Amino acid sequence: MFGSSPVLVSLDLVGIFVFAISGALVAVRKGLDIFGVLVLAGTTGLGGGFLRDVLIGATPPAALADWRYLIAPVVAGLVTFYFHPALGRMERVVTIFDAAGLGLFCVTGAVKALDHGLGPIPAALMGMVTGIGGGMARDLLAGRVPVVFSSELYATPALAGASWAVLATRADWNIWLVVLPGVLLCFGWRILAITRDWRAPLPSGPSSV
Amino acid sequence: MFGSSPVLVSLDLVGIFVFAISGALVAVRKGLDIFGVLVLAGTTGLGGGFLRDVLIGATPPAALADWRYLIAPVVAGLVTFYFHPALGRMERVVTIFDAAGLGLFCVTGAVKALDHGLGPIPAALMGMVTGIGGGMARDLLAGRVPVVFSSELYATPALAGASWAVLATRADWNIWLVVLPGVLLCFGWRILAITRDWRAPLPSGPSSV
Amino acid sequence: MFGSSPVLVSLDLVGIFVFAISGALVAVRKGLDIFGVLVLAGTTGLGGGFLRDVLIGATPPAALADWRYLIAPVVAGLVTFYFHPALGRMERVVTIFDAAGLGLFCVTGAVKALDHGLGPIPAALMGMVTGIGGGMARDLLAGRVPVVFSSELYATPALAGASWAVLATRADWNIWLVVLPGVLLCFGWRILAITRDWRAPLPSGPSSV
Repeated sequence: MFGSSPVLVSLDLVGIFVFAISGALVAVRKGLDIFGVLVLAGTTGLGGGFLRDVLIGATPPAALADWRYLIAPVVAGLVTFYFHPALGRMERVVTIFDAAGLGLFCVTGAVKALDHGLGPIPAALMGMVTGIGGGMARDLLAGRVPVVFSSELYATPALAGASWAVLATRADWNIWLVVLPGVLLCFGWRILAITRDWRAPLPSGPSSV
Repeated sequence: MFGSSPVLVSLDLVGIFVFAISGALVAVRKGLDIFGVLVLAGTTGLGGGFLRDVLIGATPPAALADWRYLIAPVVAGLVTFYFHPALGRMERVVTIFDAAGLGLFCVTGAVKALDHGLGPIPAALMGMVTGIGGGMARDLLAGRVPVVFSSELYATPALAGASWAVLATRADWNIWLVVLPGVLLCFGWRILAITRDWRAPLPSGPSSV
Repeated sequence: MFGSSPVLVSLDLVGIFVFAISGALVAVRKGLDIFGVLVLAGTTGLGGGFLRDVLIGATPPAALADWRYLIAPVVAGLVTFYFHPALGRMERVVTIFDAAGLGLFCVTGAVKALDHGLGPIPAALMGMVTGIGGGMARDLLAGRVPVVFSSELYATPALAGASWAVLATRADWNIWLVVLPGVLLCFGWRILAITRDWRAPLPSGPSSV
């Protein structure tokens, strides 16, 4: 189903593109040259999907069998490299696109995991991993604290969106009912967490160091 | 054999649980929120097994096909999050459990690799990788020096325990003769290395920098 | 074809050996003990090939089915551990061997990916990944800035050599015409980039931070 659904493939490509822009921006701010920018763009855009495909045994990953998956991060990297001051002034826009990428990937990742025969809970987790994996790889390579460990909510909205996609797919609902509420749930939660500075609970006791 | 042996599955689950506690404690000490704690607990508990399963081609990993493998790190993470001061006072206990996890994983990892048709030397190495992989992922994500590079002996006891498991399995011995001496060899060696401050040889000459 | 070509297997083994030496030298300079040296030697020598084999679905990786692939990094690690002052004085020699490893891996990686049915562009990318993957793993574990992000050209020569190997393989040319020009293209470019201090373009505008 996944391979033949143009809706899901399109959402995947948009997700790759916007995540790749976030990776390229980190690279530009680190003063990397154009190849560093392209490597971080590719790692961020494709990392989550690669991790998912390797874990569910769907190798080679879709990104290695379909040239559109490879062109997306290259274009995103080149655009960012040449126009980053404009993108930088649109910091708010980039943050919104990053949240959209998280929403898109958690849904497409969960559906693809279901298609490969995983149960509902593992599939929801794979959706979350697809969403957060690219950003974790980006931050590891760039020597930053992984965004998933920053105090803004990140993994939870992705798990929520993925869970919706799993439930709706199992209920055999229309593809738009699988995708739209799942993406919006993750996207909206993430945006609200950023703008309202929502925090997850911290350990209550004294640190045990 | 591995899938049907309740002994090996039980040892695997205990190993996941104790490793996940070590990951959650690192997260608590870094001041991460509850989701950071759960992510590090899951990565530490499941990372070594994921790495092994992906390398030997046993995808999707057992942890994605069996809900008990997912519940173990979640419970470990929640317990640590809410009761970490008590666990922190039990630092010595945690260290012992961590060494037990290393012993359990090196044995179960080696046996699983043999079951998938690997030769004896690669299987022993896969046992070692299963034991040390989770802790390496934890330390990379948390920005710490990987424990395997600390001067206490870590990889060698795991390789020794895994080698025992390989030899005993190839000799077709009883499952308890595969498991118990292997786990105890790794566990005992690791504990002695910590308590007696054993060190591996350092480069003898002047550093070449 | 790959498995039966002694030329490609030999080049792969030489590449593993020289990359493992570079990993062991980093470990020695970090003051790691002998096991840390062996772990970094193994990760650097085998990491790129493991990543390639996992991504193209060729599991278990060749290195787990052929003992020569395991012996190579162990010997490289031990040699470096005991003779590192001599190797350190030969810094220039090590840099040359590292570039040779990059050239060897980008070619053998690309040919192996083609053999597993990948298209030409993904195969060239897999060649590049094989070449740069080991060094990235080494630098992540050792807490260094990944070499691929240093300002010397690194990924591009690897992509160029891999692209040659893909074109020549698709044209059904003799194995030596696949291998020699590809290796020399990557190796020569890399060496010239180092000795002449070639730089890739940096972002032109002001950083957007």
